[in-house]
Amino acid sequence: MIQHTVRMFDTELRALERQVAQMGHLAGDQIVRSVDALVAKDRELARSVIAGDEAIDHLQQEIDEKAVALIARRQPMAADLREIIGAIRIANDLERVGDLAESIAKRVLLIVDSFALDEPIRQMRRMVELVLEQVRSVLQSYEARDVAAAMEVWRKDREVDALNSSLFRELLTYMMEDMRSISYCAHLLFCIKNVERIGDHATNIAETVHYIVKGQPLLEERPKVDLTSEVMTPQA
Amino acid sequence: MIQHTVRMFDTELRALERQVAQMGHLAGDQIVRSVDALVAKDRELARSVIAGDEAIDHLQQEIDEKAVALIARRQPMAADLREIIGAIRIANDLERVGDLAESIAKRVLLIVDSFALDEPIRQMRRMVELVLEQVRSVLQSYEARDVAAAMEVWRKDREVDALNSSLFRELLTYMMEDMRSISYCAHLLFCIKNVERIGDHATNIAETVHYIVKGQPLLEERPKVDLTSEVMTPQA
Repeated sequence: MIQHTVRMFDTELRALERQVAQMGHLAGDQIVRSVDALVAKDRELARSVIAGDEAIDHLQQEIDEKAVALIARRQPMAADLREIIGAIRIANDLERVGDLAESIAKRVLLIVDSFALDEPIRQMRRMVELVLEQVRSVLQSYEARDVAAAMEVWRKDREVDALNSSLFRELLTYMMEDMRSISYCAHLLFCIKNVERIGDHATNIAETVHYIVKGQPLLEERPKVDLTSEVMTPQA
Repeated sequence: MIQHTVRMFDTELRALERQVAQMGHLAGDQIVRSVDALVAKDRELARSVIAGDEAIDHLQQEIDEKAVALIARRQPMAADLREIIGAIRIANDLERVGDLAESIAKRVLLIVDSFALDEPIRQMRRMVELVLEQVRSVLQSYEARDVAAAMEVWRKDREVDALNSSLFRELLTYMMEDMRSISYCAHLLFCIKNVERIGDHATNIAETVHYIVKGQPLLEERPKVDLTSEVMTPQA
């Protein structure tokens, strides 16, 4: 009977995990599609990204409810409890990743008709590829409970921050060179910041993987460096 | 003996709650000080805000650890479990409020010497006052377990969004009128967005108060409307 209960609990835990993985896939797709919509100025695609956010929100709510019910019913200890708390945290980060992709799609609708520049978009794509890779790697590290792989993601966030800072500087230059680009570039600044924030959520998830496996929070300082502090402001 | 255990548990729950309230006070102070630093271009104050974030982070970590230990040790059911999960969630939101104030302070260091404009700063102050009021009200609603008051905060987030959108438009105009203001205004755009996001966290906390008291998530649509969609982009 106890064996049976233990097996049941394990099945429930695995189901929770699978739902988190499913959320991860959806969130990854939303990132790709939101940036495709931005690059192609595709209004329809942007609308479909906006509509697609609901599925992610629902999944998070489901995971949250199941997780809390599981704690109440099974009263798990130590490692099992960490698995459940970890699922809640990762789902929370993925929900926000979805929001950030949705927010990019909303900005596509605002700039679809405006004066646009190709070069910053091209560079943004590189940053998005790096961030997408971070999101996928950290989800794999979660599935494999691989702390070393998670820490690799955690450390790599510096590169994302560096790209963000360099793009920030470049966009300011574009704005100064051509007044017509100001509104477009201002929206793009926020899109790029959103991509950087998606990277931060990958970093959060890496910390959660560490917590699940090791049983304690990561105490090293976050790799975050504010490289925009190198931004030179034009002399007044 | 059981009575004794119940009383102990209650004491532990109240201690957790007090720590969340303490985090709320610290986060509120950080908001005020970061914006004071921005208005006064006060480098020292900005640095002290940046240094002050650590105390908030530590408190969150402590709350998280205590909460998880409490679940493992006491195996609480229903309402008590919701109290603990609620404390974790609110601490999570307050930690991010602290990060957003810190991020404003970091930008103060970047723009302290640049060409500045008084008018947008004056308007930003109004928005900050509203958001601060939201944060304080929602923390009071948490202390009083007052769902009606929490919902009031939840609904009022629309006003914050409206101010954000109108300031966004205005800053674009300033940028177009005077090229020297571009870098300054770009940083200010992000400061204002941070204030708006602090408002979103107050809204999240309102949803958590609802969850703690009512036992289920709020299913109404978020009051969020993207008013920046009214932004007109200049004709190319």
